[in-house]
Amino acid sequence: MASYLITGSSRGLGLALVSRLIALPASQVATVFATSRQDQPSANLKEIIDRSAGRVAHVQLNTTDQLSIKSAVQQVERQLQGRGLDVLINNAGVQPMTQGGVETMDNLTDAFSINVNATHEVCRAFLPLLRKGQRKVISNISTALGSIAMATPYLARTSPAYNITKAALNMLTKQYALNLEKEEFTVFCLSPGWLQTDMGGSGADLSSEEGAVAVLDLIQNANHRETNGRFLNIHVPGWEHAKGFNRYDGKEIPW
Amino acid sequence: MASYLITGSSRGLGLALVSRLIALPASQVATVFATSRQDQPSANLKEIIDRSAGRVAHVQLNTTDQLSIKSAVQQVERQLQGRGLDVLINNAGVQPMTQGGVETMDNLTDAFSINVNATHEVCRAFLPLLRKGQRKVISNISTALGSIAMATPYLARTSPAYNITKAALNMLTKQYALNLEKEEFTVFCLSPGWLQTDMGGSGADLSSEEGAVAVLDLIQNANHRETNGRFLNIHVPGWEHAKGFNRYDGKEIPW
Repeated sequence: MASYLITGSSRGLGLALVSRLIALPASQVATVFATSRQDQPSANLKEIIDRSAGRVAHVQLNTTDQLSIKSAVQQVERQLQGRGLDVLINNAGVQPMTQGGVETMDNLTDAFSINVNATHEVCRAFLPLLRKGQRKVISNISTALGSIAMATPYLARTSPAYNITKAALNMLTKQYALNLEKEEFTVFCLSPGWLQTDMGGSGADLSSEEGAVAVLDLIQNANHRETNGRFLNIHVPGWEHAKGFNRYDGKEIPW
Repeated sequence: MASYLITGSSRGLGLALVSRLIALPASQVATVFATSRQDQPSANLKEIIDRSAGRVAHVQLNTTDQLSIKSAVQQVERQLQGRGLDVLINNAGVQPMTQGGVETMDNLTDAFSINVNATHEVCRAFLPLLRKGQRKVISNISTALGSIAMATPYLARTSPAYNITKAALNMLTKQYALNLEKEEFTVFCLSPGWLQTDMGGSGADLSSEEGAVAVLDLIQNANHRETNGRFLNIHVPGWEHAKGFNRYDGKEIPW
């Protein structure tokens, strides 16, 4: 009977996660708070809400706006009626591209604001509700492109701001994991790999549905002792030895 | 006959680096551009300039101000009279502290602006002069506290914004290293350890002079093939097995 909140649920992985969650029995997933910047849910999200028998609620949440965060927390608190929030999935983010390599990068500050600082603000605003929850899980959607150890010339040319801010997100995750260690939280980051979303494009490795299934496997199996502070790949059977940059073996990614 | 530019030279490690550089023979170090935010050099920096026989020039450089960067580049270009800049040391930075752990962190955006985005803006503004230089070295002053692999509960409680932005600086360094690979640049980050500066306090491991000697050893020995894209500790003889968080063994720090 867990409750989930997922940021950036209009489309892509966020939307697929909402859809997958309500395909699970209500005994496992009671309530899903699907947030998006817009006042109204996207058409795709609305379609899921309409067939969710009240299990999915749309929450307006612009993660870079303090007032919007505050109002979202109040709405979620009201709807939980005294219960806690079990799982927070920080999925909202941007992947700004550059054409001429790091020298031409003009989008670092914006990317940092959305990918890192906003995630921090959302985390801390929902902490009181998470502390009342049963699972105490915070899962930050990162990327193998945020691995400094695995950085490549190609990615340094095309998406430096994404790579840099995701490395920072990984350290933010680690800071929360260490700070909340004593309260037995499970705070971790994961790479969903390369998904066929608006962000990933149609040539990507996996459909957003396949990605969502594997991401939720990781999150549902996450526990304080084994998962806190880690950076994990999703596991997709048959894709453990994929030849591209992303691995789908469920294993640790080097920082 | 190399030329150096060091940001944040008013005090601390930056000042000690300037002082150490002019203790080296003019055949090794011709010109040092010592930058600080202030229009005039600090009293300590002025004292070094006065006894430098024209080898040290003060340059006003507020690294978060585009116009100031542009004007600094013009001044340095004029003074180099057609020669290139050999070594850029990005030393300016802040170490904001928090009292209540990451939950109370309110200084992340400012820290990112100074420690990461400003370093990026300085790097790219000086690239044309560095391309004309003989050494093509960019050394970013990082910290072992920016290592995600080595993160500790104590540091997550006291300086999360510093840790997060230095991890981001490390990835920025890697992006430049990869982008400038073909031009045989040497772009790397190093941890000067814990120094007795205003930032480090008087209880720190090493004097700023000891730190400066070891930092310059690293920078003078840095070369494209062995050093590009790496994250290194300084080497201080006798301190290789220090018991604290910092190591002074000249070896690689895990990301």
